[in-house]
Amino acid sequence: MENKKVTVFRKEHFNAAHRLHNPAWTSERNKAVFGLCNNENFHGHNYELVVQVTGEIDPETGYVIDLKILSDLIKEQVLDRFDHKNLNLDTVEFKQLNPTAENIAVVIYDLLRAKLDAHLVLKIRLYETERNFVEYPC
Amino acid sequence: MENKKVTVFRKEHFNAAHRLHNPAWTSERNKAVFGLCNNENFHGHNYELVVQVTGEIDPETGYVIDLKILSDLIKEQVLDRFDHKNLNLDTVEFKQLNPTAENIAVVIYDLLRAKLDAHLVLKIRLYETERNFVEYPC
Amino acid sequence: MENKKVTVFRKEHFNAAHRLHNPAWTSERNKAVFGLCNNENFHGHNYELVVQVTGEIDPETGYVIDLKILSDLIKEQVLDRFDHKNLNLDTVEFKQLNPTAENIAVVIYDLLRAKLDAHLVLKIRLYETERNFVEYPC
Amino acid sequence: MENKKVTVFRKEHFNAAHRLHNPAWTSERNKAVFGLCNNENFHGHNYELVVQVTGEIDPETGYVIDLKILSDLIKEQVLDRFDHKNLNLDTVEFKQLNPTAENIAVVIYDLLRAKLDAHLVLKIRLYETERNFVEYPC
Amino acid sequence: MENKKVTVFRKEHFNAAHRLHNPAWTSERNKAVFGLCNNENFHGHNYELVVQVTGEIDPETGYVIDLKILSDLIKEQVLDRFDHKNLNLDTVEFKQLNPTAENIAVVIYDLLRAKLDAHLVLKIRLYETERNFVEYPC
Amino acid sequence: MENKKVTVFRKEHFNAAHRLHNPAWTSERNKAVFGLCNNENFHGHNYELVVQVTGEIDPETGYVIDLKILSDLIKEQVLDRFDHKNLNLDTVEFKQLNPTAENIAVVIYDLLRAKLDAHLVLKIRLYETERNFVEYPC
Repeated sequence: MENKKVTVFRKEHFNAAHRLHNPAWTSERNKAVFGLCNNENFHGHNYELVVQVTGEIDPETGYVIDLKILSDLIKEQVLDRFDHKNLNLDTVEFKQLNPTAENIAVVIYDLLRAKLDAHLVLKIRLYETERNFVEYPC
Repeated sequence: MENKKVTVFRKEHFNAAHRLHNPAWTSERNKAVFGLCNNENFHGHNYELVVQVTGEIDPETGYVIDLKILSDLIKEQVLDRFDHKNLNLDTVEFKQLNPTAENIAVVIYDLLRAKLDAHLVLKIRLYETERNFVEYPC
Repeated sequence: MENKKVTVFRKEHFNAAHRLHNPAWTSERNKAVFGLCNNENFHGHNYELVVQVTGEIDPETGYVIDLKILSDLIKEQVLDRFDHKNLNLDTVEFKQLNPTAENIAVVIYDLLRAKLDAHLVLKIRLYETERNFVEYPC
Repeated sequence: MENKKVTVFRKEHFNAAHRLHNPAWTSERNKAVFGLCNNENFHGHNYELVVQVTGEIDPETGYVIDLKILSDLIKEQVLDRFDHKNLNLDTVEFKQLNPTAENIAVVIYDLLRAKLDAHLVLKIRLYETERNFVEYPC
Repeated sequence: MENKKVTVFRKEHFNAAHRLHNPAWTSERNKAVFGLCNNENFHGHNYELVVQVTGEIDPETGYVIDLKILSDLIKEQVLDRFDHKNLNLDTVEFKQLNPTAENIAVVIYDLLRAKLDAHLVLKIRLYETERNFVEYPC
Repeated sequence: MENKKVTVFRKEHFNAAHRLHNPAWTSERNKAVFGLCNNENFHGHNYELVVQVTGEIDPETGYVIDLKILSDLIKEQVLDRFDHKNLNLDTVEFKQLNPTAENIAVVIYDLLRAKLDAHLVLKIRLYETERNFVEYPC
């Protein structure tokens, strides 16, 4: 008999500074498009991250994946890299890439995807604020 | 190379009065089906609205859609129409249509769909209370 | 030995329609002061009510007051009176009194105070929205 | 014309004690895999349950399903069975089945699925804590 | 010049099983007073704990107390003692004392008070559920 | 007869970057005391601000203070100054003052106190994260 497929979710958070900016544009166009988010001295957010993993229930444990193991993986791959950092200045991932919520979610997906068993389906939800959030993939 | 597809969400709210009622029914049947929600002098809610839009990340901005633009569109199409209104008496949309959460979500979808680029996928989540909410389409 | 004093809180909610209006004023002044809240066909809210009661721990039960009993009292005195009602039209309390959050909190305090043991200290917190709330007494 | 399909959600909660344990394993392996959750005297949670039902809007009521009826069904099938219980000792469902969030969600799905009209699509989300939650089916 | 006095808050949580019971009473009276909470096999909660500390801002750090240090103290004195435990069976504090939210808050206060500088004012808020919570002292 | 005294609350938010640092200390001591918060390229937060004002209910309006007016005042005095800013680099208030939550709360209090009627009592609650927050005065 086949095992049931369930999605499990783990919520974590990190605090970071960032600035939205396209270096190929003039200062005026950057201000027009990104508004306050273009402030050259940065601003910041409490990012809430929800990692969702879909797979079969292991009949021996009753788990899809041990959420303690998933939490440790998120800490190692995401929080240690981005928590209390300036995304534009302190990380290699956003040296050339604009740290919008969309791009941060894709980067986090790629970081976790590389470390997760291939048979597990991964999805990322990232809250930049309580009112603005993104999901990837979709 | 193809751009990544991401879903972005914007949360807004509005406060409105409403009454659930089917004019084709007797008063007794309305009371039996809609209970307290049929109160003839109306009651009301703080509606929490989550608008989700799926599309490709624009490589120049890192945005699927500027959430400030989406927020302005929601304000113009939804909040200015329904906020601090009596849905049954003050709006053309619910003159003939029972303002259940289901129907309000469909109406909001239609209002925003008409104004949104055709290549963007739209979905509405509407909270009538913290414990009762709906999603459309599905 | 004296028993320890503790404050206990019980959270309930009700949904109601209302309109802010001073009948002694002109229509223009009402609109200027109350804005959208003066809409003559009413609007509404999900009111979140937190009732706090301070007293000594009963050494036999470990309770200040059984929160089930407090919840029943709130239901009987507040929810049955205001839930799914139009505060202006359906209640005697707000026939002459403007149903602002401030006035609703005072009315709820008086209703519960009359039914609660005199040695218990009572306080009301009322959320009209997540961003606007009041407390009485203070 | 076809009726619109909408998903409706109802949130309920229950409080229960449980212990994660595989009787086929040694005590050491149980401790290694389940950690604190293996505590032999149990621990407990406030489980938040979101039941989602997808179907066509009934044009007479504007409802997919009356959420009061859905709430009563959840109370009868889930809360009366699990609320203020020890899942391992007090329920037949988890006598042989490890009460992980994954397994609880599957059990709740089966209980509700048996009572729900066949044309309605059912999905369960269960929060064990604010940070750990699951969804079934997916 | 005197330093400004500020209150700082740190929120933590723990999961535990408990049973409300007065051994001096008959089984019938226990059931009548404590209802479902008297279930002999226990039930459980996600307890949310908010520890508040009032004192002067240290002009060198800008802190009343380093919240990392306060968090470590809560972990050592409260979480390590109660998290993933059966309060009635696994702890010395509630061997003789009924583990109501009121009594748990008093116990937590005493544990932290003994370790905190005497010039700091301490207060405990404990959520047993989102709707039932307590504060001590008051 | 005297008017009833009520406390009203208005919640707002702003996003900012900051760094905790004492320029009178060595780099080592700054790292030891402030840890990750000392990161020289800054990090950031979504600050949630709750402003509470206590006064008598005006019998003509039923308001202590029009929350729209209070909200406009907060926007003008606090949000326009700190939202999407680097507190250390972009503001005069924190040029010399370490931007801890404690100090930010005192600064916000002073900014609003100067603009508020003297008979109204003011208190500030500031959330740096959901788990770390402060209140001033106390």
